[in-house]
Amino acid sequence: MPPVALAVSALDPDAPGLARYARWLGVDTLESLGERETPYVAGTGPFAGLSFKVEGLQPTGSFKDRGSATLVGRLSELAVGHVVEDSSGNAGASLAAYCARAGIAVRLFVPESTPVAKLRQAAVHGAEIVRVPGPREAAGAAAIEAAETSGEVYASHLWNPYFTRGMSTFAFELWEQRHQQAPDAVVIPVGAGTLFLGAYQGFLSLREAGLAARVPRMFGVQVEAFAPLARASESGSKQAANVAPATSAADGVLVANPPNAPAVLEAARASGGAIIAVSEAALWDAHGLLGVRGLFVEPTSAVAAAGALVLRSAGVLVSDAETVVVLTGHGLKSAASRPGSG
Amino acid sequence: MPPVALAVSALDPDAPGLARYARWLGVDTLESLGERETPYVAGTGPFAGLSFKVEGLQPTGSFKDRGSATLVGRLSELAVGHVVEDSSGNAGASLAAYCARAGIAVRLFVPESTPVAKLRQAAVHGAEIVRVPGPREAAGAAAIEAAETSGEVYASHLWNPYFTRGMSTFAFELWEQRHQQAPDAVVIPVGAGTLFLGAYQGFLSLREAGLAARVPRMFGVQVEAFAPLARASESGSKQAANVAPATSAADGVLVANPPNAPAVLEAARASGGAIIAVSEAALWDAHGLLGVRGLFVEPTSAVAAAGALVLRSAGVLVSDAETVVVLTGHGLKSAASRPGSG
Repeated sequence: MPPVALAVSALDPDAPGLARYARWLGVDTLESLGERETPYVAGTGPFAGLSFKVEGLQPTGSFKDRGSATLVGRLSELAVGHVVEDSSGNAGASLAAYCARAGIAVRLFVPESTPVAKLRQAAVHGAEIVRVPGPREAAGAAAIEAAETSGEVYASHLWNPYFTRGMSTFAFELWEQRHQQAPDAVVIPVGAGTLFLGAYQGFLSLREAGLAARVPRMFGVQVEAFAPLARASESGSKQAANVAPATSAADGVLVANPPNAPAVLEAARASGGAIIAVSEAALWDAHGLLGVRGLFVEPTSAVAAAGALVLRSAGVLVSDAETVVVLTGHGLKSAASRPGSG
Repeated sequence: MPPVALAVSALDPDAPGLARYARWLGVDTLESLGERETPYVAGTGPFAGLSFKVEGLQPTGSFKDRGSATLVGRLSELAVGHVVEDSSGNAGASLAAYCARAGIAVRLFVPESTPVAKLRQAAVHGAEIVRVPGPREAAGAAAIEAAETSGEVYASHLWNPYFTRGMSTFAFELWEQRHQQAPDAVVIPVGAGTLFLGAYQGFLSLREAGLAARVPRMFGVQVEAFAPLARASESGSKQAANVAPATSAADGVLVANPPNAPAVLEAARASGGAIIAVSEAALWDAHGLLGVRGLFVEPTSAVAAAGALVLRSAGVLVSDAETVVVLTGHGLKSAASRPGSG
């Protein structure tokens, strides 16, 4: 990818949504489903003083659309007609939607155990679903093997740099919504870390270009039951910790050893942030507190809100720190509800 | 409500989303969940030449948020603390979300038979759900009775003029996205007709103010199995036809005798449009065609896309008519899928 120099004059004032940032991303084309900037709203009640960035209002209901719009734009430029990907979650649904818009066929490799309901959105968008026996990693291996034998492109949200680069639009958009200022801190759920890393790189670019005075402290949040990056962050390790498989309502953060792990840990450390973990009870508490204040989010998103409350009560975030909590997916994305609640 | 004179100078350039139109709506305050303008995107494939307005990207996933933001803003001005409403669908979820944001308690009266899953979103937003035995009308009667005996405000999406007025923002926003021009035709699913009527009134206001040269032909779409307004439109009646109860995947259009029926029929006639009906098969065909082009919509929304194809193939809409099809709700809103498909 070409190096990118950020200048306000390179923003396209007439392009809506992500296309506005095409030249900042160093791409010629973004695919579009009409996405606009996502809401930036003030928290109330226990969240007073915090702000929320509501990424669930991207077209497919999650932040992944930033990466898909950028990656699929590039695939279109290259006249790619078929891709493979492995994801049973929001990334698969998002890639399927943008590829459908672009006329690119998608084969999606998923673990055999994935419930049909979770694959519905990708299926509506015409993705061919290929079920692979064994653990999550087997689906990834099958996708790569398919790409190697068929010549289809491996359009991986985990590995493709255009996907991560698209995540930088999160930083650019927030900076514009805040009248060209970066916040003091950003709190994000972290699984594979594409948004965490892409946002960090976006903020770095803004500072390097002299457009922002600081890079926010970057805080990532996982769940206590499964916290490979939080454990590593706590111990100062540069690699994800080995942890036993576990379940959580926050399925988006259950990623064992993502390729970005060392970079995510370094971004957290270098920015003065950290990766932390919250309990399943804290997750559901935050989910409920958001809901009764008008914000319906995926359980995965609730970990960021829970994490922000923990960081504040621990004094890591002082009360006047300008803190942005990222609500990564819409509540309509998940059928999960608090155990025992009905 | 005060009469409103539209002037471009009265638009608030700094207010995001719906608040931009406060003075055009004649209100001081709108409640906000950070909503932005919804996408306006070109159709592809069989929809080439049509455009879509993607209302499913309002905060709660449906167009109802336009009405809720306006109505709840007014309730807040009046320092209302408790409201009642009757809706088991998108209107109830939307009102619950905006009232939650405003700190207004909601009691939602629903038919006893309503599935729990359909009430989940309103429940997350803290609405108290009151189940009422009998048909849909019994829930409405119970809400009105509760309001009369308790002094709570009946915040009805069907009856409250602020709710309908909020729908005018659909016309204003589309007019701005089209560089201050109204389209030739608009195609909308019609149940109670609040969006149909609010949009029509918005376009009328724009023309009266000299800001638009025309009012679009307004086409409403229902399903053949239950088409009280389409039957009336066909026969030239000024009242909704009596039709037998029926089911459809497009549950949003299954409204028997809405208060707005005469006004909706008159708006369709006066604008040179009509209310039509499409088959359940056509609905699902359109749902599938949208999906494989990147647009995942509620079955109710698919009736508008199906209706637009019918109007074009019948020659009612000529191919160069600038036609906007309203996709009223996000696909994530509904768990329904085509019978026999899965």
